[in-house]
Amino acid sequence: MAVYTHLGAEQLAALIHEYDVGHLVSAKGIAEGVSNSNWLIETTGSGSGGERFILTMYERRIDLADLPFFLGLLDHLSAKGSPVPRTIHDRVGNASRLVDGKAVALIEFLPGMSIDHPTAAQAQAVGRALAGIHLASADFAATRKNDLRPNDWQQIFDQCGARLGDIDPALPDIVMNCLPRLISEWPEHLPRATIHADLFPDNVLMLGDEVTGLIDFYFACTDIAAYDLAVTHAAWSFRTVDGVYRPEIGAALIAGYQEVRNLSENEKLALPLLAQGAAMRFVATRAFDWINTPDDALVKRKDPMDFARRMNFYAEAGQSPFTPAAN
Amino acid sequence: MAVYTHLGAEQLAALIHEYDVGHLVSAKGIAEGVSNSNWLIETTGSGSGGERFILTMYERRIDLADLPFFLGLLDHLSAKGSPVPRTIHDRVGNASRLVDGKAVALIEFLPGMSIDHPTAAQAQAVGRALAGIHLASADFAATRKNDLRPNDWQQIFDQCGARLGDIDPALPDIVMNCLPRLISEWPEHLPRATIHADLFPDNVLMLGDEVTGLIDFYFACTDIAAYDLAVTHAAWSFRTVDGVYRPEIGAALIAGYQEVRNLSENEKLALPLLAQGAAMRFVATRAFDWINTPDDALVKRKDPMDFARRMNFYAEAGQSPFTPAAN
Repeated sequence: MAVYTHLGAEQLAALIHEYDVGHLVSAKGIAEGVSNSNWLIETTGSGSGGERFILTMYERRIDLADLPFFLGLLDHLSAKGSPVPRTIHDRVGNASRLVDGKAVALIEFLPGMSIDHPTAAQAQAVGRALAGIHLASADFAATRKNDLRPNDWQQIFDQCGARLGDIDPALPDIVMNCLPRLISEWPEHLPRATIHADLFPDNVLMLGDEVTGLIDFYFACTDIAAYDLAVTHAAWSFRTVDGVYRPEIGAALIAGYQEVRNLSENEKLALPLLAQGAAMRFVATRAFDWINTPDDALVKRKDPMDFARRMNFYAEAGQSPFTPAAN
Repeated sequence: MAVYTHLGAEQLAALIHEYDVGHLVSAKGIAEGVSNSNWLIETTGSGSGGERFILTMYERRIDLADLPFFLGLLDHLSAKGSPVPRTIHDRVGNASRLVDGKAVALIEFLPGMSIDHPTAAQAQAVGRALAGIHLASADFAATRKNDLRPNDWQQIFDQCGARLGDIDPALPDIVMNCLPRLISEWPEHLPRATIHADLFPDNVLMLGDEVTGLIDFYFACTDIAAYDLAVTHAAWSFRTVDGVYRPEIGAALIAGYQEVRNLSENEKLALPLLAQGAAMRFVATRAFDWINTPDDALVKRKDPMDFARRMNFYAEAGQSPFTPAAN
């Protein structure tokens, strides 16, 4: 949550000049993105009025070979009418450029706010938007392997080793009681799509009950569509303050999704397992980050136990959190 | 350089509703301000088009009793046509409000970029703008004592104690060779004004050669006008990359200032001493912060030696850096 690189006014003006967006008027580094630096850019615009953009500099974690996939996906989805920011291409057509040896992209600015405590109507809209990108990506030709699948979680936990128990003495058992079954029973046969794979509330912009932007596609990949719904369910349906499950939110997400894309019986039956997997994925990366982030770093560490508890919830709750009618 | 407080969409929307600025459309935490949290806010506007604002939350360092002075000064200067953002008052006329027990203010957004490597024409414009606020504040009724005057620097160094030499073995001598004379010879009799007292390039927004905004008035106080010019001279006239003095910049600042407000002979003669004081003020606060900031904190510490070298430069250079013609 920081701007990692200083870009001077002169450097930024020269960069913006490479695009047909008018002259640079303002640039504010924004406190978003864990692995990127981002600026909210204002220009005089190419037409009659000023325009705003997000300038993203890719600092780390992102493999630059994946950038054409990520940026191409934004263009594909926005062209299909999904609420996704398009990439602004430079005057010769490049979707990304290099500044000081780092890749940057200029991306459409979308209005809207990230919601802390969604209503059921908002969750339903998010479900619809998620299904929308699954359908809209059906003819997106590029593919990308998911780097965070069940075997990868296992490898991450192996790297954590004995220190996993330092986070919480119960954590190693919670993981080991669940992970082998997730690996062996993972429903590889289910329908695939280009999935967002990280659709937390801070990656969704809303105005009222309307989704105005799905953002931060840097985990997007080609994988099980219903797994994306499970990730979104695990990310949205629990109260931030105390982790209590909110049945009306989970039900609304599923209902909204099915308004746009029907889930098959097999997909529905797999949701409890997929949701345990979704929770496990965040337990794994958060445990790794917890162990590898210094205590006094200003980056706020996310407690892996939040998602360990969600995993236990899904293991016990069976089908009911995935039933469209609130219960 | 961070956002210290999370404000949820719902909280922000409720706050913005207290002002006559339309509905909240977007809010991005921006990576500016060391002691405040700041958001770039967009609303539907009170008239025909959208509007942008800076929302500032006062986190620490700032004495809330000073807030009416700071915000009143913005209103006074902007009403006089200075390039200073005005404060947006809420529907009942308050310039600041409380959110979660912390004071916040909604401030006009001004276009422009902070310059890393100014040209002489830009420095001249900054000199003019600085003189402009000295003149425009002549009938500003409120006053505020400067908390960072020569005796205060002495106290800060006393608090640093022996650890001052840990920063650089030469630093204690540099300070002690200069500070007693600054205290005893400080030209208290010179004309006073409401001064910015911290007009570094990152507190000036420019478009081309035009100053579009002077911002961050949270050190503003009632003190020697020529001291403010000396602070600005010390902050602008040295190359960032290697600290080398740029005579054309120093000369342009002085020339620009005098286009708008004449310096008396006494003020001119005092500038070398005032500039040493200005440099000493930043040596003092940066040394204190250096000692009191953990090595691995993400906040970038500023090396006090940069300004110790500028102080030595001013001690040796005499009148020449303050002559309006470049030499």
